[in-house]
Amino acid sequence: MFTKIAHIGIAVKDLNASVELFGKLFGKAADRIESVAEHKVHTAAFTIGESSIELTEATDQESPIAKFIEKRGEGVHHVSFVVDEIEREMVRLRDLGFQLIDGKPRLGADGYYVAFLHPKSANGVLIELSQKKS
Amino acid sequence: MFTKIAHIGIAVKDLNASVELFGKLFGKAADRIESVAEHKVHTAAFTIGESSIELTEATDQESPIAKFIEKRGEGVHHVSFVVDEIEREMVRLRDLGFQLIDGKPRLGADGYYVAFLHPKSANGVLIELSQKKS
Repeated sequence: MFTKIAHIGIAVKDLNASVELFGKLFGKAADRIESVAEHKVHTAAFTIGESSIELTEATDQESPIAKFIEKRGEGVHHVSFVVDEIEREMVRLRDLGFQLIDGKPRLGADGYYVAFLHPKSANGVLIELSQKKS
Repeated sequence: MFTKIAHIGIAVKDLNASVELFGKLFGKAADRIESVAEHKVHTAAFTIGESSIELTEATDQESPIAKFIEKRGEGVHHVSFVVDEIEREMVRLRDLGFQLIDGKPRLGADGYYVAFLHPKSANGVLIELSQKKS
């Protein structure tokens, strides 16, 4: 079951500049700044209600975020949803014909297990399933 | 003040097909289907937690949604946030240098007053401010 939007991931070129910009937009400071070595990114998150806006800068030109910006420019990169049981959701969605990028959940930012669906499966939207590591 | 994500707007070519697809994804039916003549769109919304996913199909090839799809393909079109006082937020953001598309709030879907910020103001993300019509 999908319980809430975990975050909206936004690909940015310059994390410091974007943290300042979104700080002005939301009228508050970022709630979390983190590096995820496995994904070759720096991220900053602003909590808004039960969700967050996650700004992401690539630390390597070969990372998916760098390639996304090169192809499409800055903007919304993915939408992440909290699900109650990620492995069960992955089986359910695969059985329904959705194309999964990840064969099994992997560790993402902020202590969540995550798995991506291919954007071709969902009208061009890259969707992430996430479940808090227990 | 930004209180929550109101919705994520997704531009789609065929609303009926996308309602079926996202119905499978979320494992539930759409919560609301509506036409907004002023914006020349049909929309369908799926509530997820305190927010919703709003699928939008253009009813006119001259509408912004049709032009967006022509240029970028289907995908996330805008992110809408609920703010407590839309007119005050608009003044605050204009004073901070954000470029607003709307000079004053206008009536959007589901009984909200809305106003858009230019995506150039926010790292390529089209942001909508919204406040429930009282």
